[in-house]
Amino acid sequence: MTQASIITIGDELLIGQVIDTNSAWMAQQLNVAGIKVIRRVAVGDTWDEIWKALDEESTHADIILITGGLGPTADDITKPLLTKYFNGKLVINEGALQNVKNIFEKVLNKPMIESNFKQAEVPDTCKIIQNKRGTAPGMWFEKDGKVFVSMPGVPYEMKGMMDDYVIPELSTFFIFPHITHRTLLTAGIGESFLAELIKHYEGTLPEHIKLAYLPNYGMVRLRLSSRGFDRIAVEKEVQEYFETLQNLVTEHLVTNLDEPMEKVTGKLLAARHKTVCTAESCTGGFIAHLLTTIPGSSAFYDGSVVSYSYKAKEDLLHVSKELLQTKGAVSEEVVIQMAKGALDAIKSDYVIAVSGIMGPDGGLPDKPVGTVWIAVGNKNKIVAQRLHFRFDRERNTQLTATNALNILRKFILADI
Amino acid sequence: MTQASIITIGDELLIGQVIDTNSAWMAQQLNVAGIKVIRRVAVGDTWDEIWKALDEESTHADIILITGGLGPTADDITKPLLTKYFNGKLVINEGALQNVKNIFEKVLNKPMIESNFKQAEVPDTCKIIQNKRGTAPGMWFEKDGKVFVSMPGVPYEMKGMMDDYVIPELSTFFIFPHITHRTLLTAGIGESFLAELIKHYEGTLPEHIKLAYLPNYGMVRLRLSSRGFDRIAVEKEVQEYFETLQNLVTEHLVTNLDEPMEKVTGKLLAARHKTVCTAESCTGGFIAHLLTTIPGSSAFYDGSVVSYSYKAKEDLLHVSKELLQTKGAVSEEVVIQMAKGALDAIKSDYVIAVSGIMGPDGGLPDKPVGTVWIAVGNKNKIVAQRLHFRFDRERNTQLTATNALNILRKFILADI
Repeated sequence: MTQASIITIGDELLIGQVIDTNSAWMAQQLNVAGIKVIRRVAVGDTWDEIWKALDEESTHADIILITGGLGPTADDITKPLLTKYFNGKLVINEGALQNVKNIFEKVLNKPMIESNFKQAEVPDTCKIIQNKRGTAPGMWFEKDGKVFVSMPGVPYEMKGMMDDYVIPELSTFFIFPHITHRTLLTAGIGESFLAELIKHYEGTLPEHIKLAYLPNYGMVRLRLSSRGFDRIAVEKEVQEYFETLQNLVTEHLVTNLDEPMEKVTGKLLAARHKTVCTAESCTGGFIAHLLTTIPGSSAFYDGSVVSYSYKAKEDLLHVSKELLQTKGAVSEEVVIQMAKGALDAIKSDYVIAVSGIMGPDGGLPDKPVGTVWIAVGNKNKIVAQRLHFRFDRERNTQLTATNALNILRKFILADI
Repeated sequence: MTQASIITIGDELLIGQVIDTNSAWMAQQLNVAGIKVIRRVAVGDTWDEIWKALDEESTHADIILITGGLGPTADDITKPLLTKYFNGKLVINEGALQNVKNIFEKVLNKPMIESNFKQAEVPDTCKIIQNKRGTAPGMWFEKDGKVFVSMPGVPYEMKGMMDDYVIPELSTFFIFPHITHRTLLTAGIGESFLAELIKHYEGTLPEHIKLAYLPNYGMVRLRLSSRGFDRIAVEKEVQEYFETLQNLVTEHLVTNLDEPMEKVTGKLLAARHKTVCTAESCTGGFIAHLLTTIPGSSAFYDGSVVSYSYKAKEDLLHVSKELLQTKGAVSEEVVIQMAKGALDAIKSDYVIAVSGIMGPDGGLPDKPVGTVWIAVGNKNKIVAQRLHFRFDRERNTQLTATNALNILRKFILADI
């Protein structure tokens, strides 16, 4: 079976200055196209390491996709290396040059400098991949029946090339099986208890269907995967096992699609033609941000008040000064007033309000770091609950947000 | 020189279901400790692939750090594999068992099941690393002068083990050089023009000092790196070259520290004892979120109004219905009213307001997707400008947020 390996190039990956989001995206697209990614490797901007990686990955895989190292500056050595590796010489490509000129004339409105012309040089042993979103062209090499593709590291340029050219071209070059994944999301049950619950089921799975546990933010995703050349048969079989799995975890099931909590709650609201607003203290707008990452979120989301200071809680949400002083901002009474205040101001159908201490500082003896009050409700009823997380600021914020969205989801489902 | 390789294990990495943030963090910590990371490799939950990765990475590196594959469920094969790879047998570790029992008794308040006991099993050929944050212990192996460390994939558990044990222990095992990086952030100048500006300077850099260009969200970071056993000499030399670099890019310099835009703007506000609030439409709370990711942000951040709907713009920010109808929400007039409305409501010293079309839908002939109006100001003066981004929803949102923070930064610096 055809296998791919992804090489990402850049010292910044090895000193941890940037997080590699490219290879996850690429793996996703390859997978959908039926190409199994077997390895992902990151190496620095070092001649020997890149050379060795090309040698080594071509022993593992049939398709080697490379990103990074193609910028106009002196720290990028990938292009000369590829020229040598594939026994070519650098030549100006007219199509690529025209593209660079267009970008400078029409988009940037600036004269070109020498290094910009260099962007149009490619080895004469490659097929060029036009870059519609930037100046560095992609390169397609073939050697001993293997395909090597080099693309820029800028995510949206790489993504454009993958969609427009690389995936379609690979599909004419190789024959791929159909790969299918089905994922569901559970909440409120730990990984080991979930495993216990479906232990017998797991034993009944045929060898070629894989089950994976993916814990994330206090929830667990379960994924079934299978592959084969008969698309209909593969999907039918996985679907049957997936239905059995859903039935086993019904009580904890959030969604039977591979989608995040904010999308589940957003879709539920949209389906009922209802809207939500939020009143956020400790999460500082993160719940609003999650909801608005979903295209078309204006259908179910009206707006938020981020009341970080006491003053903002009083002025924007009409939380009483007395309550803030006697109970503190992180209290049941205040979070309920925040919820009511947001509903009064924004007049959505539902509301989420949160107030807590995310850390690293601000903890109190009776309210340690990680203490959070969450209120959800509508104009008839507001319910509040206290949760406690034990992690760092970032993770506490994420857990608060996903839990709040889940609490609202359950409130809506119970609200007839 | 001692080199490390990071192996991350999990099918989810190879189908792109999760983004690998662990290895970036690990690389950062290793780097600070003077350990050069030479490669990062991700492989699936497959016996042969993990085995080959251990073989291969030990030809590249002296230290091999492994994360993932240690959960209590059946898809995790790393522990049996490591037991065989290092010629051991699985035995219950008393310390690890006690830890698992404690977590179940004191934190989870649940009875243990069989798979939980299995978490306390380790190969008898390793030193155990206690997990203070979860049930799966870490494992430290030594073979042919090389060190192999296996840790859970859960980020905060792995991070705890690295800080508490792995980094200190490695430092007693090997002698590391001092590694130093200095990073500055520029805005308003493209990578190739920046390269042209510092071309001569780049030529004067000694072989052992590396310069890297890191473009991100329309800004470019420049990083100088060097290493050596004489810490003081290494730092002094880099500092001199770094100062020259700063002088060359003064006009475009945002910060001479490795910190994000929100921190630069936040620190500037805090230093002047000023606060900011935001009125966000298209960014849906993302600017508020960025500002509140900074611990202690309550010193300079009061709150925000996220006015996603027309109604929220009218009710919360008193934008006039007439303006919304005649000019549209994405207009100079509306973004200025949003800014004024937020200042009136929250009474901060400064304000940022944004309104735009992030895509994929919602574009108009005269306001295509990516059109954004940004207003910044204080009670005396509000200025607005129109920007246009050409990317996807996520990137347009990020670019809007960082640009808005930079525009406010420049406004504050000009505001005497």
